Amino acid sequence: ECFNSPYGTQYFKEYAEKIPGESTQKLAEVAKECSVYLVGGSIPEEDGGKLYNTCTVFGPDGTMLAKHRKVHLFDIDIPGKIKFKESETLSPGNSFSMFDTPYCKVGLGICYDIRFAEMAQIYGQKGCELLIYPGAFNLTTGPAHWELLQRGRAVDNQVYVATVSPARDEKASYVAWGHSTVVNPWGEVIAKAGAEETVIYTDIDLKKLTEIRQQIPILSQKRCDLYSTEMKE
Amino acid sequence: ECFNSPYGTQYFKEYAEKIPGESTQKLAEVAKECSVYLVGGSIPEEDGGKLYNTCTVFGPDGTMLAKHRKVHLFDIDIPGKIKFKESETLSPGNSFSMFDTPYCKVGLGICYDIRFAEMAQIYGQKGCELLIYPGAFNLTTGPAHWELLQRGRAVDNQVYVATVSPARDEKASYVAWGHSTVVNPWGEVIAKAGAEETVIYTDIDLKKLTEIRQQIPILSQKRCDLYSTEMKE
Repeated sequence: ECFNSPYGTQYFKEYAEKIPGESTQKLAEVAKECSVYLVGGSIPEEDGGKLYNTCTVFGPDGTMLAKHRKVHLFDIDIPGKIKFKESETLSPGNSFSMFDTPYCKVGLGICYDIRFAEMAQIYGQKGCELLIYPGAFNLTTGPAHWELLQRGRAVDNQVYVATVSPARDEKASYVAWGHSTVVNPWGEVIAKAGAEETVIYTDIDLKKLTEIRQQIPILSQKRCDLYSTEMKE
Repeated sequence: ECFNSPYGTQYFKEYAEKIPGESTQKLAEVAKECSVYLVGGSIPEEDGGKLYNTCTVFGPDGTMLAKHRKVHLFDIDIPGKIKFKESETLSPGNSFSMFDTPYCKVGLGICYDIRFAEMAQIYGQKGCELLIYPGAFNLTTGPAHWELLQRGRAVDNQVYVATVSPARDEKASYVAWGHSTVVNPWGEVIAKAGAEETVIYTDIDLKKLTEIRQQIPILSQKRCDLYSTEMKE
């Protein structure tokens, strides 16, 4: 999250870029050069005089497949622990962001978006089998909720969930929790970084996902006659 | 869950009672005698030739305040681990169940109901601050999901969650996980039984609940313009 910028409302304007711009063009080049799908964390984006916290995704030919603007801005106030108000400088995105790959459909959120179960439920309903959240939890919310929220989203929607955090910099004004993680649809952590800079790898096993959905078929057992979660775009 | 009966589709018909009936009248008497709110686990209920898995709740004067029939029947099949099909003999309930106390409003589910996030979301929206799920997870789903689901419901809806399980009986045809638990709205386990028969106590601190909702105000930050979870009764 905000990999080209320190994370803080006082920095976003200075580091904001247009899309396409320097950082995202580099992401596009690397995706093409390596022939990979690249979910490029997020950067502060400037568009029409407004700032957004934006994640871009590029395909193996370098084209942009998705652009997600953080929908839920991070405004919290835990006395003596952490106070942050993204909405001081950022504007929220107003849409869900999904993209197709030859492997599965992927849904995108950024950090605080993961706290909102409805977003993941809608991604699941739309056929996403992997949810990716670049995010920077902190030393208060990180140990309390970072892994729990990922495991919850994974089990409730029977999807893979991957998070990508900046490594921890104790000298930064906002100290990130780190701990990039991948969780499978059974709710198990299958890959996890520490607080330091590192690279983690794991397999997204869609056969396992299908098996779990057959074993505990909650997705087909939902009582649509009693409730539903609906997209309103 | 099914405290007056072994847990198994082959037993429910034999042990089923009308409501009111022997077990629930005893619950009413005890609630009145002790002047407490009593959430009386569940029993197999017979009504109009159909069987239900039903939880009754009594107030301090012995009147029945709620009757919840399990909405989501437990039909799962994990090869080599656990296969169970409640729908072989039980019919599902078709409504949400809430009751008021002088302390807070309470929402009810039974066991498998806890896997369905929408139910808890609706209870939260309706003002419930405590969700109670009598339930009997097993030795496969218990260690994997029992605590995770409770902590997830608690954090996502910023409510207290309490579960009540039968103690473990290794000789039963269905071996319960045990581990009755209470989780606070921060997602912390504040009371937890082992597998054996025991009594646990804890305080439901509604001031703490209010503080958490102020600190991380996700309930007022939901993007109702983009999504909603709705009741359809």
